[in-house]
Amino acid sequence: MSDTSNTPEQRYDALHLITDEVLARYSKTPDPRLRELMLSLIKHIHSFAKEVKLTAEEWAFTMNFLEETGKWCSPGRNEFMIFSDALGLSMLTVTQDYPRPEHATEPTLVGPFLLENAPQFPMGADISAGAAGTPMYAHGQVLDIHGQPVAHAIIDVWHSDDRGLYDVQDGLEEKGPWARAALTTDADGRYSFWSVLPVDYPVPQDGTAIQMLQATTGRSWRPAHLHFRIQAPGQRPLITHIFDRNSQNLNSDAVFGVRPSLIADFKPQTPGQAPDGKSMDRDFFTLEYNFTMTDALA
Amino acid sequence: MSDTSNTPEQRYDALHLITDEVLARYSKTPDPRLRELMLSLIKHIHSFAKEVKLTAEEWAFTMNFLEETGKWCSPGRNEFMIFSDALGLSMLTVTQDYPRPEHATEPTLVGPFLLENAPQFPMGADISAGAAGTPMYAHGQVLDIHGQPVAHAIIDVWHSDDRGLYDVQDGLEEKGPWARAALTTDADGRYSFWSVLPVDYPVPQDGTAIQMLQATTGRSWRPAHLHFRIQAPGQRPLITHIFDRNSQNLNSDAVFGVRPSLIADFKPQTPGQAPDGKSMDRDFFTLEYNFTMTDALA
Repeated sequence: MSDTSNTPEQRYDALHLITDEVLARYSKTPDPRLRELMLSLIKHIHSFAKEVKLTAEEWAFTMNFLEETGKWCSPGRNEFMIFSDALGLSMLTVTQDYPRPEHATEPTLVGPFLLENAPQFPMGADISAGAAGTPMYAHGQVLDIHGQPVAHAIIDVWHSDDRGLYDVQDGLEEKGPWARAALTTDADGRYSFWSVLPVDYPVPQDGTAIQMLQATTGRSWRPAHLHFRIQAPGQRPLITHIFDRNSQNLNSDAVFGVRPSLIADFKPQTPGQAPDGKSMDRDFFTLEYNFTMTDALA
Repeated sequence: MSDTSNTPEQRYDALHLITDEVLARYSKTPDPRLRELMLSLIKHIHSFAKEVKLTAEEWAFTMNFLEETGKWCSPGRNEFMIFSDALGLSMLTVTQDYPRPEHATEPTLVGPFLLENAPQFPMGADISAGAAGTPMYAHGQVLDIHGQPVAHAIIDVWHSDDRGLYDVQDGLEEKGPWARAALTTDADGRYSFWSVLPVDYPVPQDGTAIQMLQATTGRSWRPAHLHFRIQAPGQRPLITHIFDRNSQNLNSDAVFGVRPSLIADFKPQTPGQAPDGKSMDRDFFTLEYNFTMTDALA
């Protein structure tokens, strides 16, 4: 039996035959949604490989690169998520997935550093847990889409210290979490906490995502921000950031996460009385931001 | 500054803006080939996510699944490669990458189990190294495209035992390699070795690729085969399989690797003298296959 795909025309046909054979096989996927996902994924992966005429060497590099990427994953760090963020896939998914009425707070990407079961703190507590930085007092209210307070909402907040690092990048297992908390709103939907001012930082410098960014966009920095995840019965979970208007990187976020509505004033304050009555003997910052949730999906 | 993307029409616009912003950023990639690859990849990933309306839950599942896939990688096993194989990407790349004159041996995918620095054996040696199975004698000649013998070619061969397992799946570090060898052709381009007959086997049962296959095509078996990689100065490296014509899975290879020209007769033999003069007191198999390499790319 002889090889029948050795001329250029026959090789072209062979490529289409491969795609057709793969699609035919996956069209037998029992679950309709999984079938839809797989068939579209296969079509686009094959189209990509054909469009760029992917070489065996590039393919082998990619396989090694994916394996290497897996090695950078650990609790609180998913390196694949950084790729998804850096390629705009995360923001695309967040944007199309989240139908929002006008005036609802915009969501943004979750990022690679969320941890479940964050330490719980009471209203107004200092969540920095030893993180270095300028003191910051953040407060506001969680509202539903009708403007009513959302009482007893669970707010996860997590952010960097003044080095631009998160607890998960700094020996989490030995030192425990810092600048990370689960808070609960009061009967009026209010929240407040003390921590330290977050700063601009680059994506992790020791993984594969930074290699990709350095070889492509050259943009690896994120503007200073606080991460929030807010959950309450009857409300759709809200995952978002609040960005510092003073950041130099608002127009070049490495992961395309900035939305104008999420930029807020982290206001510098001189020593004196803080909004919660605390007496401060050094400079500090205040942030006030109200969140508007949307109704849970039916 | 208010949110301007809250109506369905505005959200649709927002999706295109995200893609445009990401493409604009990556269009600054300095290396022209990497730029071409990244722009095409981003277009196809975004098109996929929009086409299927990828949800945040599906995205999160995928991120966890990729992280989990990374954990199944180890020396001699790249789980991402099994996905590439199972989605037809590997065969697509091999086929389009490898311009071949007529009559050259067809390449097929490398598979996840190749190891560099395989143990070297002399001509005619038994490479099974204790692997269980029916004895098999394989021999043939390596030729160039002009029909001339390729002397001193390095042949890597690797295959399963009678359980359908490879050495890398069976405590390689403690037990060392088996059914795996680096051979050298003689002055006439000839090779020969003894080993055990490979059998049909499923892709690894303990990783994430098998989960995907079970949920989709339901086809996880590969037809019995020997892997070959042949390298020689002036010749393009040839990576291929030889498949057993008696396999029940030739038409349903989980990774789409079968080419008719790569199917050969593994011939059953009764006790007696083998082709190399060895006296066999039990049944065995013989395989004769000649490989035709192609000139190295200019």
